[in-house]
Amino acid sequence: MIKDKLYIGIDLGGTFIKGGVVSNKGQLLYSTQIETQAEKGPDKVTENIIKLINNLIKNFSSNKEDFCGVGIGVPGIVNSEKGIAVCSHNLKFDNFPIAEKIEREVSMPVKIANDANLAALGESLFGFSNGCKNVVMLTLGTGVGGGAIINGTMLEGNKSAGAEFGHSVIVFNGNKCNCGRKGCLESYVSATALIKKTKEEMLKNKSSKMWQVGSVENVNGKTAFNFKDIDKTAKKIVEEYINYLSCGVINIVNVFRPEVVVLGGGISNQGESLFKPLQKIVDKEMFASKHTPKVKIVAAKLGNNAGVLGSVGLFEN
Amino acid sequence: MIKDKLYIGIDLGGTFIKGGVVSNKGQLLYSTQIETQAEKGPDKVTENIIKLINNLIKNFSSNKEDFCGVGIGVPGIVNSEKGIAVCSHNLKFDNFPIAEKIEREVSMPVKIANDANLAALGESLFGFSNGCKNVVMLTLGTGVGGGAIINGTMLEGNKSAGAEFGHSVIVFNGNKCNCGRKGCLESYVSATALIKKTKEEMLKNKSSKMWQVGSVENVNGKTAFNFKDIDKTAKKIVEEYINYLSCGVINIVNVFRPEVVVLGGGISNQGESLFKPLQKIVDKEMFASKHTPKVKIVAAKLGNNAGVLGSVGLFEN
Repeated sequence: MIKDKLYIGIDLGGTFIKGGVVSNKGQLLYSTQIETQAEKGPDKVTENIIKLINNLIKNFSSNKEDFCGVGIGVPGIVNSEKGIAVCSHNLKFDNFPIAEKIEREVSMPVKIANDANLAALGESLFGFSNGCKNVVMLTLGTGVGGGAIINGTMLEGNKSAGAEFGHSVIVFNGNKCNCGRKGCLESYVSATALIKKTKEEMLKNKSSKMWQVGSVENVNGKTAFNFKDIDKTAKKIVEEYINYLSCGVINIVNVFRPEVVVLGGGISNQGESLFKPLQKIVDKEMFASKHTPKVKIVAAKLGNNAGVLGSVGLFEN
Repeated sequence: MIKDKLYIGIDLGGTFIKGGVVSNKGQLLYSTQIETQAEKGPDKVTENIIKLINNLIKNFSSNKEDFCGVGIGVPGIVNSEKGIAVCSHNLKFDNFPIAEKIEREVSMPVKIANDANLAALGESLFGFSNGCKNVVMLTLGTGVGGGAIINGTMLEGNKSAGAEFGHSVIVFNGNKCNCGRKGCLESYVSATALIKKTKEEMLKNKSSKMWQVGSVENVNGKTAFNFKDIDKTAKKIVEEYINYLSCGVINIVNVFRPEVVVLGGGISNQGESLFKPLQKIVDKEMFASKHTPKVKIVAAKLGNNAGVLGSVGLFEN
């Protein structure tokens, strides 16, 4: 019997570092986490990653030789070839040779990638898009991140600075975006944008049923979706949201023509009320839709574990 | 001495089929063309391609065995893996197995690709971006086409239907586009769009110096550029054009992060008056510009021969 290969997957977040023992078949065999302590700087964060790796080894098997390597998802701009965290605002990385530092301590191969790219790789390998060679993932969270898998390989671009799907203008001279431009997809379809829009519309429509949540302080990314069947204002917000989202998704489809687009982040939990109208618009409006196979739009399957599971792909691809 | 390998490159256009003998070093050693006769249907077009290939062989060397293969750029949607021209309006292709048919007659390997993708491959291999592994080409012509080279490989997407850079919405609910959507890049930065805008502005501004061309019938893609230093209306048109173009280019840069963006098509001949302001906006507005290398914007170098030269890349990559 051929034994599964084992890897350690790490997802470095601003608050917690998540880690797991993952098989090459995509089974998450053991997982745990540790505080990032980002405020204490890159060296302390690195120390914590090493501590987490040693915990995983100790608690799962005690034998370092059972593992083939460590894959780490790092936020921000990452030079994956050289293992350098180029820049990450929250974690204060500035050309920090993180892979080398960890490799020295754990004595096994360490590879890094941008966290969103790694999550996309995880979803393409072990999510609903399992088996598809061309997959794009779009994460609708505080911001809009994403990753593209092309012929089974992560799109990284020069110095791994690519795949910034959120920072693509869809409304020329539109809403101000954090990146400095105006009208980026992120400023229309992030959870942040949806919440802002919901609050604005509630303040304009004092009779909206959405006021049942109490105050605008209680609005979240679900509010408009929750009330859309009983409230005109909510319905209008959801329809507009889906129109902007489909615009961004079709732009991506026309450029990458993946088999599947995976949506992640909290908003992707809305189920049919989001995916049904979205799929309908994409089917109708994508380029050469009459002559080419449909592109499926699906919700992410792996949730917060996508990055940890994706680490396998850094070694097995 | 190692002899150069020789290939036959074919660029299938609506009016002419261009063909050349190309070395693996990117030298165009001999070229000629033949009428497409598109109106006579796919079989006649194929017959003409075979005739052209035989002419090239006969006139260049008389010996079929000197050649390693034939690479053909085909307009429309192309299944490059299976060698099928899936759909092409001008040439009436409808799932036409063009590679197989030609291979049978010329007795050497035949590979096909979308013509714009093949031109991008040619520019990345033998143009100004020579040596760069990540290159995006955008062709500003009647429409807006393009191609992306990622780590030296053409982006094709599922069934080779990807890389439609012109059909990415940058102005939500904007100008109507031929593809059925509203606000696509093509409807703002194609030569067609620039000519339309120039005519509209001239009709609104009867005192514009652009009327020196005689009538709006004489307007072309150069008119606004030619008058921009002596006419306010022309200056405004050019500035607006560059703003839309930079928006599209930055969207592409943020997603692909290539080393180089190559602009092709007639408008790319405008030199500094186009490239200088464009580069300035891209440098300033691209994502994480302070932490990542500049992305160079350059004019295509190979002109009409890009596709013929790119055919080498179908075999040598």
